[in-house]
Amino acid sequence: MSFFEELLVGDVVMTGRHTFTPESIKAFARRFDPQRFHMDEEEAARSHFGALCASGWHTAAAWMRLLVDARRAAEEAARARGEAVAASGPALGLRNLKWLRPVYAGETIDYRTEITALRVSGSKPRFGLMTTLTTGVNQDGATVISFESTTFVERRLPPAKAS
Amino acid sequence: MSFFEELLVGDVVMTGRHTFTPESIKAFARRFDPQRFHMDEEEAARSHFGALCASGWHTAAAWMRLLVDARRAAEEAARARGEAVAASGPALGLRNLKWLRPVYAGETIDYRTEITALRVSGSKPRFGLMTTLTTGVNQDGATVISFESTTFVERRLPPAKAS
Repeated sequence: MSFFEELLVGDVVMTGRHTFTPESIKAFARRFDPQRFHMDEEEAARSHFGALCASGWHTAAAWMRLLVDARRAAEEAARARGEAVAASGPALGLRNLKWLRPVYAGETIDYRTEITALRVSGSKPRFGLMTTLTTGVNQDGATVISFESTTFVERRLPPAKAS
Repeated sequence: MSFFEELLVGDVVMTGRHTFTPESIKAFARRFDPQRFHMDEEEAARSHFGALCASGWHTAAAWMRLLVDARRAAEEAARARGEAVAASGPALGLRNLKWLRPVYAGETIDYRTEITALRVSGSKPRFGLMTTLTTGVNQDGATVISFESTTFVERRLPPAKAS
């Protein structure tokens, strides 16, 4: 993670892409969302979706996996260059999580995160607060998922002590 | 699913409870949230969480599983009584998903959903819109997760035709 001072509103990070295979869609659904149209092609064909598609929770969890991998790779690269790595807090929640279109079997979703706001934390002055909009876009350019979140990001410079 | 006319603001449904075992926490994390404090007790003990805890996405997905199972059981019971079952639409999103406290290994979370608003759909007059607040509460009575959502629920009576 970059330090708060290096972040700019409008910065975009491409987190990665994930292809939702029929097998992975069904495996997730069996465990966490066993609605028939997420587990069987014929049932899906008869449903309002018309074909096998991923649980919305699968679309979200796949993004989390890409985020963890991307962040780890970036941190390892920074450490290899001898650079410090900023601490960041856990996400405390999401706002406006939207499943805008089904993610059908075989589709590849590209996830991107844009910084939409930055401000210094009032409660934890060692940290800034980064607000982001994350979207997942399919191979046709259609957005399938979006959500906003706010994360604590470490500041490079400690705040001046009050005298 | 009950029909829209049978729903009341303030109605509460207990969806079910789920115990987060260390094994299930680690299995979910390996697949979808491989941060070290979700996969290893010793790493977790050194982290800001202090002990192994579930990915927030796991806490959410476990609710989805309980919802699907509870809804299916209710629908099968209704059909066994010869009652009609209302159609309901897929959730199109969530608002204000909050992970309020960690869910530590061994904790049991009780999920409840309260109807907070009801209105007839403007765009789909065969349906009503049900807005709900879902919470997950641990064995100490502390809320660990909450979110709001809105779902289409079929109306029993078709709307009168315009003359």
